[in-house]
Amino acid sequence: MSGETSVKASIFEDHLWLRGPSSGLRPTLGQIGLQQFAPYLINSISLSWVTHLASALKAHDMTTTQMRALAVLSISSPVTINELSQFALTEQSTMSRTLDALEEQAFIVRKPRPEDLRVRDVEITQAGRDAFAKVWPTMYDLLIRMFDGIDSEEYKAFTATMHKMMSNVRKHGIGSFQRDT
Amino acid sequence: MSGETSVKASIFEDHLWLRGPSSGLRPTLGQIGLQQFAPYLINSISLSWVTHLASALKAHDMTTTQMRALAVLSISSPVTINELSQFALTEQSTMSRTLDALEEQAFIVRKPRPEDLRVRDVEITQAGRDAFAKVWPTMYDLLIRMFDGIDSEEYKAFTATMHKMMSNVRKHGIGSFQRDT
Repeated sequence: MSGETSVKASIFEDHLWLRGPSSGLRPTLGQIGLQQFAPYLINSISLSWVTHLASALKAHDMTTTQMRALAVLSISSPVTINELSQFALTEQSTMSRTLDALEEQAFIVRKPRPEDLRVRDVEITQAGRDAFAKVWPTMYDLLIRMFDGIDSEEYKAFTATMHKMMSNVRKHGIGSFQRDT
Repeated sequence: MSGETSVKASIFEDHLWLRGPSSGLRPTLGQIGLQQFAPYLINSISLSWVTHLASALKAHDMTTTQMRALAVLSISSPVTINELSQFALTEQSTMSRTLDALEEQAFIVRKPRPEDLRVRDVEITQAGRDAFAKVWPTMYDLLIRMFDGIDSEEYKAFTATMHKMMSNVRKHGIGSFQRDT
């Protein structure tokens, strides 16, 4: 290791959250360990999920972004392109192209909002709902396999921690995808 | 919602883990809710982390993949390209190009292994360790902000759940990035 501090790994475990960022007593990554460094685990699991699903979606002739758009719209429709991009974790420019493809397949329609014709709302069609309903079992079954051996209580605790993190992301302005253009 | 089943949202919360994937009683995504669908939260947090860090790394003239390679090598060196790619969550082809750039900056060296000259080991240099040590405070401080209000016990429970998921990823063969080429 780089030996930049003399803090021991055990101190990370016991006192990590008592120290602020400017205390000057940062443990090294080696002292924490890659498997205890939460962002590494999150990125790794995210990558496995996305990669596996992208490959399964190919059988349905659907991209990840198309699936995400339909998933959001299956819950809430109509929405603006801006709302849809945010919820579907996709940049607006990518979402625009995705909506072109979805409109061609008649899975969505874009309509000017009567009160403000400059705003176009995105609405899912029944064909779009049916298309998402066809891929949903794959997603749900993947969820079940990923959480194999994890009970409902642990699942709730896990998502509760992530809700705190999402709130920190907003509170501390931790970069959303939209800043990266 | 698509109305494909008559299961209520509350049942998802209570009985999700009692039902197998083939029970035919899948709740819809709308019944679960996007904010209770763990993969959505994981992907969202991963995206915020990666995007924020990528932007911070620019000030150090470093890409995400370069940072990941140096991070892994700061813990374990020398390693093979294959090991490095796996731990750094990066495809081998991308990692090869990344190593070219890192070698140019004298942050790593590639050496044929004496026992088997066909294998080339990747080794971090002191300059490489120094370069990672310069970006590490940014990463650590981001971690602290992301886990603001989350104590050590909750952090441990959170990573423990992710370890179970990583084990499920391996056990159920849930796609690693390397399948996606």
